[in-house]
Amino acid sequence: MSLVQTKKQTSLLRHPAIYTDYYELTMAQGYYLAGRKDERACFDYFFRDNPFDGGYVVFAGLADLLELIDDFQFHEDEIQYLAEQGFRKEFLNYLRDFRLQVDIDAAKEGEIVFPSTPLLRVEGSIIETQILETLILNILNFESLIATKASRMKYAAGDKKVLDFGLRRAQGYGGIQASKAAIIGGVEATSNTYSSFVHDIPASGTMAHSWIQSFDDELTAFRKYAEFYPDDCILLVDTYSTLKSGVPNAIKVAKELEEKGHRLKGIRLDSGDLAYFARKSRQQLDEAGLDYVKIAVSNQLDEHLIKSLLTQNAPIDLFGVGTRLATGNDSPALDGVYKLASVNNEPKLKLSENVEKITLPGRKKVMRYSDSQGRFYGDGILLMENDPGNVIHHPHYPAKHVNISSYQAEPLLSTVVKNGKVQIDIPTPIESAQYAKQRLSKLNEEHKRFDNPHIYKVGISEKLMDLRDTLTQKLKEN
Amino acid sequence: MSLVQTKKQTSLLRHPAIYTDYYELTMAQGYYLAGRKDERACFDYFFRDNPFDGGYVVFAGLADLLELIDDFQFHEDEIQYLAEQGFRKEFLNYLRDFRLQVDIDAAKEGEIVFPSTPLLRVEGSIIETQILETLILNILNFESLIATKASRMKYAAGDKKVLDFGLRRAQGYGGIQASKAAIIGGVEATSNTYSSFVHDIPASGTMAHSWIQSFDDELTAFRKYAEFYPDDCILLVDTYSTLKSGVPNAIKVAKELEEKGHRLKGIRLDSGDLAYFARKSRQQLDEAGLDYVKIAVSNQLDEHLIKSLLTQNAPIDLFGVGTRLATGNDSPALDGVYKLASVNNEPKLKLSENVEKITLPGRKKVMRYSDSQGRFYGDGILLMENDPGNVIHHPHYPAKHVNISSYQAEPLLSTVVKNGKVQIDIPTPIESAQYAKQRLSKLNEEHKRFDNPHIYKVGISEKLMDLRDTLTQKLKEN
Repeated sequence: MSLVQTKKQTSLLRHPAIYTDYYELTMAQGYYLAGRKDERACFDYFFRDNPFDGGYVVFAGLADLLELIDDFQFHEDEIQYLAEQGFRKEFLNYLRDFRLQVDIDAAKEGEIVFPSTPLLRVEGSIIETQILETLILNILNFESLIATKASRMKYAAGDKKVLDFGLRRAQGYGGIQASKAAIIGGVEATSNTYSSFVHDIPASGTMAHSWIQSFDDELTAFRKYAEFYPDDCILLVDTYSTLKSGVPNAIKVAKELEEKGHRLKGIRLDSGDLAYFARKSRQQLDEAGLDYVKIAVSNQLDEHLIKSLLTQNAPIDLFGVGTRLATGNDSPALDGVYKLASVNNEPKLKLSENVEKITLPGRKKVMRYSDSQGRFYGDGILLMENDPGNVIHHPHYPAKHVNISSYQAEPLLSTVVKNGKVQIDIPTPIESAQYAKQRLSKLNEEHKRFDNPHIYKVGISEKLMDLRDTLTQKLKEN
Repeated sequence: MSLVQTKKQTSLLRHPAIYTDYYELTMAQGYYLAGRKDERACFDYFFRDNPFDGGYVVFAGLADLLELIDDFQFHEDEIQYLAEQGFRKEFLNYLRDFRLQVDIDAAKEGEIVFPSTPLLRVEGSIIETQILETLILNILNFESLIATKASRMKYAAGDKKVLDFGLRRAQGYGGIQASKAAIIGGVEATSNTYSSFVHDIPASGTMAHSWIQSFDDELTAFRKYAEFYPDDCILLVDTYSTLKSGVPNAIKVAKELEEKGHRLKGIRLDSGDLAYFARKSRQQLDEAGLDYVKIAVSNQLDEHLIKSLLTQNAPIDLFGVGTRLATGNDSPALDGVYKLASVNNEPKLKLSENVEKITLPGRKKVMRYSDSQGRFYGDGILLMENDPGNVIHHPHYPAKHVNISSYQAEPLLSTVVKNGKVQIDIPTPIESAQYAKQRLSKLNEEHKRFDNPHIYKVGISEKLMDLRDTLTQKLKEN
């Protein structure tokens, strides 16, 4: 019986098996026709560069991936489609009975991770491991990207709140994953009702300009909203004139709420110079004795603008972030890849015209090393078998190496799927957010800063380096 | 009976009604509690800036939107969720019986469109028009963005082919829409099997590096693939060494295919300097008498790199584009907005601290003016009623105006939904691609170029300008 027990089917995909690049299927048929269907393969998922010129990534997407793996098969209408494309009868019959039997070891959802480190090790038949490639890449690349962006925004905001308003300009249905990943990365709530519904994450929202415009005047619009939501009222004050009309009307309504035993929660600024208007609004509110009324701001914010506003001491309590969170903005994709590491236990390597694209061969594990205070020191990539890995080397400059035997070591990957069956309770976004927060606290500040963050150490063991170099040599001699 | 007749449910969304920002629902309840549920509202969808520093947008997403509108209702589990959030019983009962009765006029899917022009006019009860906001924005913004990016890539590629390989780094499930929109914008086929399956668009793909690595040597890998796919074989030649191993092995296989009466379709380059390797590979192929073998390239391509490669006369026949197509890359969101234009037929306006964000009030129509050769001259935004619109003015510099009475005029919007029911046959992506291609041919070249494209004329009628200015004055006096 499956361990996947969610109250609703949270994934959108009705057809995970064909959520794949077409060439995975042509290759799969090729393996089948070559009589290789039962051969074993091992693939690694990893990314090459931190997005946003940042110093780390928050790993996310595992929960969605596991849910899809749990329901992975080719349905008759998909088989029919593939038949129309010219796939052969014997292969389609094979797909009809196809069930995943892979083993997957993975980093935890919410883990703080770094370039080159394998985050997923996928082992199984060469066909199933190949077909899974695109699903894995699509989901992990995107959700990790957005969790990371959210983490950066929350880092900039410190103890101020950050809300996700991104759905309207998110990349289509990807917006559902974006809002979930944003929670994992550290934002407090989302405007995305769909994600709130399917993923049990907090929803938030009050009013748009249209609410105010739809009434004859701003004061009536504010009063009506306060009447219906006396304890959850954030008034949008920039529809006509923020300082001449919006804030004064909000003050009137706040006073009326006080008389009825309620408190206005806040005002929201959505245009103009947010530092200037926040300061002026704060002043007007404070002079009216409303120092408890919060100021929320929105309008094309990102981590850099949040940091800038707070550096200017703008009296802002809450940041609503939209497009630049939901799309990743300056880095709209994480460059994660999925590379063949072994076939039938024989290590495999890909050379490349670009030297940093040479892959790491063999079945591997990853160790995270921490210092005596429990702070992350570095990661080591080791061979699975008989590799003490006391010394880790820079992947491309072998002379750069460190002895890590005095550090605490923990394995970064653990088994999440065995023989095609999910082995863990799939974490909720809130649980993963807590894990990410806890793990991020162990990362030194110099890796978190926005400008030229210190590069986190990721090295390879001597045994792995030797294997890579021997194989490289052999391939070049051919 | 619905006019929506698709062979499969193509949309991913099981819950379109709650695919919305939370504040749409708090406002909807507010309108309901204020006794305003039967009041009428009119909203416009438009965008403010062309993405990619370009000169136009290919309008897309309408088909997905219409399919969702056709199946729009609140289900019991969603009502239950909203009850848990604190929505009131009487409003939830209203939602239980809620059915869309909106009227929507829209530009055609694939239309060539420009900033400020309303592309959708949505009329109905204030509640239904409000709730639809996020769905409309999310779908139209994203699909139009990607159709536009694809159109630019195809423009750069000229008569060379462009294929979409973007799914693996697309923004999650948005990748399904991206591949569809890419077809509308002009690419020939996609690697995205899911989109091919649900949207009946051509799929394409052959082999990855893993295929080659999984065999003992490159030549065997090539031979095996050619054996199974003798007439659809594109060999990836850069796994080990493009010029020393990849191309020479491809030539061997091509000769073997010739002996069996087949022809090698092509080779693919995925790393290194593509111009250099394409030229060298072409030379090797030609010297072997294989001038019919095509050269495909991929690796972080966009419209600028495609243009650059072709300007260098690189002998490339096919461009595979991935991340930079599927995500929009340099402009990862279209800035489309949805603004209230009237309530109960009374025109409404939003002022703003940013003057270009002042909205256009009233129910409006859009005219496209063409010259005697049928080439697009400009668009005019007019009031629905009694507006001859002979003269159109620049929205912000009224002295800039043109008389358009000598031009051919056609309405840009037509009715697609009436009383909540879809009124048109939903176009397929291929049909929309044909329409986009035909319409793009009527746009002058200076609007298509990548560097400082000529700004297309979009103006407002004198009557609309007067209405806007009168309302602005009135609001400022309040």
